[in-house]
Amino acid sequence: MKSNIKNRLKKKKNKLSSKSGLPSESMVYVGEEREEKVSIKLLNYDSSVLEECELNKSETIDSYIQKDNVTWIMVNGIHDSNKVQDICNYYKIHPLIQEDILNTHQRTKIEEFDDYIFITFKHLYFSEQQQSIETEQISAILGQNWLLSFQETDSSLFDEIINRIQTSKGTIRHRNADFLLYKILDSAVDQYFVLIDKISDMVEDIEEETMYYPNNKTSFKIQGIKKELMVLSKHILPMREAMNKIETGGSDLIDKKIINYFKDVHDHTLQAYETIENHRSLLSDLMNIYFTTTSNKLNQVMKVLTIISTIFIPLSFLTGVFGMNFTHFPGLDNPYGYYYFWSIVILIFIGMIVYFRKKQWF
Amino acid sequence: MKSNIKNRLKKKKNKLSSKSGLPSESMVYVGEEREEKVSIKLLNYDSSVLEECELNKSETIDSYIQKDNVTWIMVNGIHDSNKVQDICNYYKIHPLIQEDILNTHQRTKIEEFDDYIFITFKHLYFSEQQQSIETEQISAILGQNWLLSFQETDSSLFDEIINRIQTSKGTIRHRNADFLLYKILDSAVDQYFVLIDKISDMVEDIEEETMYYPNNKTSFKIQGIKKELMVLSKHILPMREAMNKIETGGSDLIDKKIINYFKDVHDHTLQAYETIENHRSLLSDLMNIYFTTTSNKLNQVMKVLTIISTIFIPLSFLTGVFGMNFTHFPGLDNPYGYYYFWSIVILIFIGMIVYFRKKQWF
Amino acid sequence: MKSNIKNRLKKKKNKLSSKSGLPSESMVYVGEEREEKVSIKLLNYDSSVLEECELNKSETIDSYIQKDNVTWIMVNGIHDSNKVQDICNYYKIHPLIQEDILNTHQRTKIEEFDDYIFITFKHLYFSEQQQSIETEQISAILGQNWLLSFQETDSSLFDEIINRIQTSKGTIRHRNADFLLYKILDSAVDQYFVLIDKISDMVEDIEEETMYYPNNKTSFKIQGIKKELMVLSKHILPMREAMNKIETGGSDLIDKKIINYFKDVHDHTLQAYETIENHRSLLSDLMNIYFTTTSNKLNQVMKVLTIISTIFIPLSFLTGVFGMNFTHFPGLDNPYGYYYFWSIVILIFIGMIVYFRKKQWF
Amino acid sequence: MKSNIKNRLKKKKNKLSSKSGLPSESMVYVGEEREEKVSIKLLNYDSSVLEECELNKSETIDSYIQKDNVTWIMVNGIHDSNKVQDICNYYKIHPLIQEDILNTHQRTKIEEFDDYIFITFKHLYFSEQQQSIETEQISAILGQNWLLSFQETDSSLFDEIINRIQTSKGTIRHRNADFLLYKILDSAVDQYFVLIDKISDMVEDIEEETMYYPNNKTSFKIQGIKKELMVLSKHILPMREAMNKIETGGSDLIDKKIINYFKDVHDHTLQAYETIENHRSLLSDLMNIYFTTTSNKLNQVMKVLTIISTIFIPLSFLTGVFGMNFTHFPGLDNPYGYYYFWSIVILIFIGMIVYFRKKQWF
Amino acid sequence: MKSNIKNRLKKKKNKLSSKSGLPSESMVYVGEEREEKVSIKLLNYDSSVLEECELNKSETIDSYIQKDNVTWIMVNGIHDSNKVQDICNYYKIHPLIQEDILNTHQRTKIEEFDDYIFITFKHLYFSEQQQSIETEQISAILGQNWLLSFQETDSSLFDEIINRIQTSKGTIRHRNADFLLYKILDSAVDQYFVLIDKISDMVEDIEEETMYYPNNKTSFKIQGIKKELMVLSKHILPMREAMNKIETGGSDLIDKKIINYFKDVHDHTLQAYETIENHRSLLSDLMNIYFTTTSNKLNQVMKVLTIISTIFIPLSFLTGVFGMNFTHFPGLDNPYGYYYFWSIVILIFIGMIVYFRKKQWF
Repeated sequence: MKSNIKNRLKKKKNKLSSKSGLPSESMVYVGEEREEKVSIKLLNYDSSVLEECELNKSETIDSYIQKDNVTWIMVNGIHDSNKVQDICNYYKIHPLIQEDILNTHQRTKIEEFDDYIFITFKHLYFSEQQQSIETEQISAILGQNWLLSFQETDSSLFDEIINRIQTSKGTIRHRNADFLLYKILDSAVDQYFVLIDKISDMVEDIEEETMYYPNNKTSFKIQGIKKELMVLSKHILPMREAMNKIETGGSDLIDKKIINYFKDVHDHTLQAYETIENHRSLLSDLMNIYFTTTSNKLNQVMKVLTIISTIFIPLSFLTGVFGMNFTHFPGLDNPYGYYYFWSIVILIFIGMIVYFRKKQWF
Repeated sequence: MKSNIKNRLKKKKNKLSSKSGLPSESMVYVGEEREEKVSIKLLNYDSSVLEECELNKSETIDSYIQKDNVTWIMVNGIHDSNKVQDICNYYKIHPLIQEDILNTHQRTKIEEFDDYIFITFKHLYFSEQQQSIETEQISAILGQNWLLSFQETDSSLFDEIINRIQTSKGTIRHRNADFLLYKILDSAVDQYFVLIDKISDMVEDIEEETMYYPNNKTSFKIQGIKKELMVLSKHILPMREAMNKIETGGSDLIDKKIINYFKDVHDHTLQAYETIENHRSLLSDLMNIYFTTTSNKLNQVMKVLTIISTIFIPLSFLTGVFGMNFTHFPGLDNPYGYYYFWSIVILIFIGMIVYFRKKQWF
Repeated sequence: MKSNIKNRLKKKKNKLSSKSGLPSESMVYVGEEREEKVSIKLLNYDSSVLEECELNKSETIDSYIQKDNVTWIMVNGIHDSNKVQDICNYYKIHPLIQEDILNTHQRTKIEEFDDYIFITFKHLYFSEQQQSIETEQISAILGQNWLLSFQETDSSLFDEIINRIQTSKGTIRHRNADFLLYKILDSAVDQYFVLIDKISDMVEDIEEETMYYPNNKTSFKIQGIKKELMVLSKHILPMREAMNKIETGGSDLIDKKIINYFKDVHDHTLQAYETIENHRSLLSDLMNIYFTTTSNKLNQVMKVLTIISTIFIPLSFLTGVFGMNFTHFPGLDNPYGYYYFWSIVILIFIGMIVYFRKKQWF
Repeated sequence: MKSNIKNRLKKKKNKLSSKSGLPSESMVYVGEEREEKVSIKLLNYDSSVLEECELNKSETIDSYIQKDNVTWIMVNGIHDSNKVQDICNYYKIHPLIQEDILNTHQRTKIEEFDDYIFITFKHLYFSEQQQSIETEQISAILGQNWLLSFQETDSSLFDEIINRIQTSKGTIRHRNADFLLYKILDSAVDQYFVLIDKISDMVEDIEEETMYYPNNKTSFKIQGIKKELMVLSKHILPMREAMNKIETGGSDLIDKKIINYFKDVHDHTLQAYETIENHRSLLSDLMNIYFTTTSNKLNQVMKVLTIISTIFIPLSFLTGVFGMNFTHFPGLDNPYGYYYFWSIVILIFIGMIVYFRKKQWF
Repeated sequence: MKSNIKNRLKKKKNKLSSKSGLPSESMVYVGEEREEKVSIKLLNYDSSVLEECELNKSETIDSYIQKDNVTWIMVNGIHDSNKVQDICNYYKIHPLIQEDILNTHQRTKIEEFDDYIFITFKHLYFSEQQQSIETEQISAILGQNWLLSFQETDSSLFDEIINRIQTSKGTIRHRNADFLLYKILDSAVDQYFVLIDKISDMVEDIEEETMYYPNNKTSFKIQGIKKELMVLSKHILPMREAMNKIETGGSDLIDKKIINYFKDVHDHTLQAYETIENHRSLLSDLMNIYFTTTSNKLNQVMKVLTIISTIFIPLSFLTGVFGMNFTHFPGLDNPYGYYYFWSIVILIFIGMIVYFRKKQWF
């Protein structure tokens, strides 16, 4: 866990201000360094026809597409800022938007222009390798009948959608680009639920641990899960805002009938958010229970100490008395002195026990 | 308690993301597996006539109903997605709504369309068998003079309403389908109060326990009740939103005169919510009292330990002194030495007692 | 205190859901069982004339009143639901409102209709007998020039107002029924201040106790007062909402000039609410101070224990050493051995004292 | 501090409900009893002329003022309700407003009427005599070209303004009565900053105390400052509301150009409020630090106790063993027994020290 | 850290109310005393021409500028209030605004007038010398094609922008004064991220410290960082409000196309704010972890004490028994008595160990 936290913090630290000396509008990739080649894929389809190809230069776009069909251009990798600019300039995207696409520390947001809608959000997934939640920035630009998508790596987020287009499953081939945007957002939000389920498992485990075998690490673990929830929440909240903006925005690019679908995504983000909030509140309660358990244990320990000490310290004093070397010591010669001594000891012992019982200490 | 918590978490965990790989709009039942046959009941009534029958196929609906009367079609069980779709398609319900009906993890919500209003909410009830709060998803679609209702099992929520229709009690037979919707929501909210009363009992018990005989389990119990309240609150809050939406929505499907009845339901949810909030705040206070009591007890224990130790440790030192084997030990031969010793002991003892009294330790 | 808390909880518990099996709109009295006869009083007045009488049946109303005068019908006791209905039906009050009047667990609210305004609120007063805050539900319906009022018992809330009408003091006889409604609400809010003053006294006392002689019961008392404040707050908050609704509602039944008076009541509820909030925040701070004091005391106790133990345990070890029975024990025969021993003891003693001083332990 | 708190509480207690038995609209002075004579001062000025005089009866006002000039009537002392009513009736002020002026427990508020604007607020100042924050209620009524002001005592709040009018400094003589109102509010808010500065000093001191020499009184002091901040905040918050109301109210009595000045006052209240909030949050943090320090100290004490006990208790046992009087005691006769004993003691001692070092206890 | 805190508090204290005795509208510099001469720089440029010069008197402005170009007048140092007024009066700036410029304790705010927009904000930077966050007040006034900027010292905030104008980099020379304002705000917000990164480093370090080697100073450090975040947050929040006001204000002075750039600044302040909030919440969690760790340590210490005491105190009693000097002491003469004694000791020892194991104390 520790290294993950450090990694995450380090990554962030090096980047938030990494452009601060540069002019704004400077088209510079801000993110992890990557080696892979940036690939651009073009899909052009309507209900009957589907064309797929690898794209190299924006000038060649015209030759690939049929004007009335839906065109989806996927940019896999954004560390080659020239390619990104090349595509964006073809579609006359505002320089600030281009900058946003290249900066992987963007907050989830939606911006509506006359000719296109820009949305950027995070694809969250659990990396089995690194045992931590990883984030990848996805940007999408929706035009009249085209959609540009930009992703940091060749992630699997779009696989299912591409597969459905290729195999003509569902209604996606019969719809316009706005439905395609919905499908992408829907996939991303579905991924949030996968993560929430993962965390629910962790919450369930830690709940059992806290209640039945709490240990020194329990509080660290609770805080760890809380942190994961914070990361999730940080990305889901602005997603909700974005969905809300689409619903109420009334852009011409999104058909009235499709709005209902976005409402559905909105509902899901809301549900995700509420589940996270419930988990959070549960974790706070667990933290409280952990504190109580700890303090109860301390109480228990203190009681044992007190009972033992309170019984034996006076008795030890008594043995000390009879161990003194006074020449004139009345009672030492008494043949029953030893037995009297034990009688007193037993009396004190019983008295103490009765006292502690009455105080309900054990 | 524990198993219930685990059950609830488990149920949830397996489901939230269970559709995440599937295409949206996929009509799949998402919920517990059930074996019972899905039954569909049709009621067609006006103030004078009442027809009841079991429905098998949607095509047969027309033959059963009289156009101007109120038609209530109850679907008992939604695990047979075909039957649900069959009915829904007859009334031309949007695919996303059909999907919502089949997914039992829906958040309480209301959606207004031109021809119908869709509402989905949770029926909460205390299961004596499982000793926990159970939830059942109820969906209802209100049309011009018809109402579709969908429930997970053949629950008892509607029994009273059906009975009133059959026996023509109250004004329900003289009213339209919007009043029927009100009756259903009213019954559901009434059930919330039954649960709140149950929890009020538990709060009362735990209050007494915390104040008069707190033990190690007390904090666990307080947190347990808090959790039950959280569940209730989670479902009541969106219910309030939904009622608000009906009031202000101004749909033609709900008569202006009936709006007052929905306001009444709104008031009830508000009252339920405030009662829950009050209980919550009370439980937090109880937690505080529990902590105080615990810490007071620790103080008490520590004081006893300190008093005993502080009195006897110096005295033991004294006995130790006179137990030393120095050959030249002034005072040991003194015939009154032993009595002098006891005088010192008694002096120290009284001095200590006076000191602790002054410090108000007992 | 305890029994009061239990009583309050019990009362509530038995009632919140007591109607849940019944049809809505069922006119059933929900509240404590009472034996007293329900009496109905009618006042009919203008600036010059005043008629007072006991009312038995609604039909006789006409014979008593002069049409242009203000008519105030007071129903003392609502456990006889027939009488309540009888009056209400005469004035054509909506069934749901009648139901609200009979249900004594109503949340404070105001509802505006075309012909009348309905308001229900709680009269809070301190019962010297039961040493607790008691609540009584008051409902009032304001018409064109008439006012119906319903109270649970023959409470003293209206005494002053009736007296002012009878003796023609103030402007009340020169005004319409809307001013009468204002007077009633103003009296109720004035009662809140009486309670707040009572609680202020308790807060003052507990503040002194917490700061100068905290004991085991202090935290219980603080929580007790907090609970009383919660009860007050619960009723004052919706009162504020209600006043706000009157101000902005713009009903024709309340004269524009009278609105200012309601604003005054609004200001008072606001002030009451802020005073309560301040008291609450003060009580939380007192709780903190109590915790600090407790923990400081524990610290003090622990320090005493530690000082005594740390000084005498090593010294006891020393006496133990010289009490050993080794045959060859160097130094025991030394004529100054005993004095050397005491020198060491005094050195250790002084060393310890210096150490604790340096650590600032006493 | 204590007596101040008690005084404040007592003052309040006796007053909040002191009118509750009286009819509303009753013109009774509610506040501390005062002996001083109420004096009324009249200023009548324009840019060239200034007339000042003492006023006795409202009828004489006409003779003093020139119609187009600004008239400022200052009422110093409001415990003579007749004089207040006399002036108010001359300007036809609503009875409820008159009542508000006489009640010194009014919440800061502004009310706009057709012919005048009424504002009441608290003048807060630090009384060197009583070492506490004192409040004085100021009311002002702004008319077309006149301003009435009412203050509890002959306070110094207006001195500077009067001085500026008399010496014709600044623009005040060239402006209308609305600017005069601004000046009064500006002075009051300036006083808030004087108090905030005073409290900032206290916060600075307590911060140093908490961090470097915390003692038993530290938490009491922190809570004390918190309480002072609460008092300030209580009066500043409604002041902000009031300023907002003036800005957005759009009354004809305040010139559009003067609105900017009120915005300035608004900004200042906002700044004051934020400073207070920051101090509050700082004090909460200090409370936390205090708790941590306390608990660290307890830890320190416990460690010392444990180290000493853990080392010497086993050693004492050892001395006890060799102090036993068994006739057959192997080893006692051993000439090196005594030295063996010390070897064991030193070994145990070193072992314990090493153990505690490893545990990093000192 | 300490001295910084004190400095900051001291600075503030002396100033917030330093004008409170003075008339408002008094043009007095409120801030630290400075000795440097105030210099005024004038830049006049369009895409082709750039003129730079030092300005002495406002009358000479006309001779320097070409009417249609963008004019930027930078005032470096505001402690010479005459120079500030001279420039402001030339551009007919409202007296209250002039006052705001001179008062360095202004809250970040924006005010729109017919002919110009005034904005004042804080430039935050980390001073390596003083090891603390320093603030400098920047004010800017945007006119039709001119911009006035005021700064406390000759800070480096504008260096990059001036450099870009001089070298004609980017689009700045092709744009109007509104773009210049954007550049200034953008630079300021970029500086916030530099500070946030600095604090992120500190958070990362303290996180490691809290989890792996907490010490007495840890809580102080956590609170210290919290305080730095509070300072940042205090200035960033009103910046967000200001940006929002520009976006929605619709002033003619800012071109519709430039609004997008301000939206970008808005997004950045939002992101900065959320990062700060996340850090804050993280620090609170760290504080909790620190408390847990501390309390776990105490538990550990207490257990060691209890185990040692509980084992050896009864055993010491036993040795005391056999050290008593009774003449008649059965068993002392028993040749195996000594061995019996050790058997009992070992039995008790093992019994205790088993008991503690069962209690899972070690």
